[in-house]
Amino acid sequence: MASTNRQFHLVQLPDGPLTRDCFRLAEAAVPEPKDGEVLLRALLMSVDAANRAWMQGATYRTALSAGTVMSARGVGEVVESRHPDFAPGDLAFGDLGWQEYAALPGNSLMKQPRVTPSSHLLSVYGISGLTAYFGLREVAQAKPGDTVVISAAAGAVGTFAGQIARIMGCRTVGIAGGDEKCRWLTDELGYDAAVNYKAGPVSESLKAACPDGVDVYFDNVGGEIFETALSQMKMNGRIACCGAVSTYDAASQPAHGPRGVPFLFVVKRLAMRGFIVSDFFGRRDEALAQLRSWVETKRLKVIEDVVEGFESLPDALIGLLHGKNRGKRMVRIGEEPGA
Amino acid sequence: MASTNRQFHLVQLPDGPLTRDCFRLAEAAVPEPKDGEVLLRALLMSVDAANRAWMQGATYRTALSAGTVMSARGVGEVVESRHPDFAPGDLAFGDLGWQEYAALPGNSLMKQPRVTPSSHLLSVYGISGLTAYFGLREVAQAKPGDTVVISAAAGAVGTFAGQIARIMGCRTVGIAGGDEKCRWLTDELGYDAAVNYKAGPVSESLKAACPDGVDVYFDNVGGEIFETALSQMKMNGRIACCGAVSTYDAASQPAHGPRGVPFLFVVKRLAMRGFIVSDFFGRRDEALAQLRSWVETKRLKVIEDVVEGFESLPDALIGLLHGKNRGKRMVRIGEEPGA
Repeated sequence: MASTNRQFHLVQLPDGPLTRDCFRLAEAAVPEPKDGEVLLRALLMSVDAANRAWMQGATYRTALSAGTVMSARGVGEVVESRHPDFAPGDLAFGDLGWQEYAALPGNSLMKQPRVTPSSHLLSVYGISGLTAYFGLREVAQAKPGDTVVISAAAGAVGTFAGQIARIMGCRTVGIAGGDEKCRWLTDELGYDAAVNYKAGPVSESLKAACPDGVDVYFDNVGGEIFETALSQMKMNGRIACCGAVSTYDAASQPAHGPRGVPFLFVVKRLAMRGFIVSDFFGRRDEALAQLRSWVETKRLKVIEDVVEGFESLPDALIGLLHGKNRGKRMVRIGEEPGA
Repeated sequence: MASTNRQFHLVQLPDGPLTRDCFRLAEAAVPEPKDGEVLLRALLMSVDAANRAWMQGATYRTALSAGTVMSARGVGEVVESRHPDFAPGDLAFGDLGWQEYAALPGNSLMKQPRVTPSSHLLSVYGISGLTAYFGLREVAQAKPGDTVVISAAAGAVGTFAGQIARIMGCRTVGIAGGDEKCRWLTDELGYDAAVNYKAGPVSESLKAACPDGVDVYFDNVGGEIFETALSQMKMNGRIACCGAVSTYDAASQPAHGPRGVPFLFVVKRLAMRGFIVSDFFGRRDEALAQLRSWVETKRLKVIEDVVEGFESLPDALIGLLHGKNRGKRMVRIGEEPGA
């Protein structure tokens, strides 16, 4: 085991778009687990737009504050355990933070199975895959034949949501930034159509892609794209909200919300629901079994964007906030167990 | 039977707040019902904010256009029937329009029972009562102990919604314009608290009335009040949208929507659904039986605001749009059958 523990501290909260100087590399001692705690060696760190949202204030968790190790969820290998549920060699998921070693309460961790590659624990079998699965099936109640529009379609959740909706028999339309991403969505991921929000009014291109309107809108972004999708919903349409990426990396909160709320909800009898994946953890095993079967039969492609090396963490997050990722982004920090 | 049929024509669409000169009194012949039609003598005309919304464009029905009899729903007595389901003396509900006699397809009418007073057909046993009933029970899924906030609480739907929520075991908070209306809500209608949106920031008074936050928001108004209520929702809160009165009588559509959409929906896992009462007509009998039992046992007060006389129609609607009504407003046009 290493004698030092590299960490990135969040040294200042960003005022606008996140920059590298919000973080400082530091070294600390490898912590000693206390009673009930587990010492983990970080393997893979999840890079999520939510990391940036946590800097804005309280969300579904308390806000981050400057002067501490940057929070982030990842997968680590148990090195030492003082909690009865964990033993050395186990894999666990939790808020390890941007550091090579973390001592965390066993109760805050979720034990993970060994899968190959272990990166799948953070993508299809992790928050992204489960968010797509529950968001479509439970929250949006997608049905065969529905036209399903997915924003941030080339992102971590979007790459799974588009494919799962197609497997469910829906017509799928992805919204993403750039022609190349859009071509990739249709050519590689099987989206029926894709809309490049950076090229001209989304309103027109979305209408061209969904001439009969939208049954399900799976929203990852909020903002203007949300407003546009809302305006093109069909009667009895459903909106699943799983994030509002467009607002996370901004200097200030949006001056206004989407037009058409609540009037269009009445006229078209729309239903909208926000969720985070842990709301459905009680049914995690059922979802994982389904996802595993789709992956094993090659019906579901697992798109991962693995950035190598601990030092890459700040740039990996900043890049994600600028849409540089394709599929689930994570940073590999430690060697695979047994490697 | 009269030989002439007084009518109000909508002669121009309003550009901003509705004015009397949008209407012109006219006289026509009493129409002859064609095959499949029913001739009705208007008894009571419902006065609804929706009448104004129909002038803005297509909603859940086609937009009104200038140069025709003003559309409105009401109850009439069948004078002559060429439809097998109706006979002279029957009561029926439908889009009679602002006129003393209307010939309408029998298929567009709903037969009504005789109740005393027949005004109840347009209030508690009509759209208002059923909207409150289904909105709380089905759309908002209100549960005993919930804090339920109702906007336009002194209006047609609000007066029923507040009482029904209380009967269901909820804590009820009404939002209305003016201290007198607010006192009436608590003293006469049994609301636990009332917020006067015309006196100071609603945000503060709503927080004072709901220190632990809002479980259910029953929205009748949209706009700023919607935004404020949204910001004070509790985890897993539910919003039922049944109209957006604040936007109906304006010169232009709102420049922006409520802040917090969709972000707060994710953070707090909110659900929102728009509806109109006819979505639930399949279960109308069950609802009417329940409402009747509450009325007969005096648990539910029926608040009606009956304006007398055909000529009052334009002013009754304009006044309603300025919040002049208390409870369900309607205009009595014809004498009760058998009177």
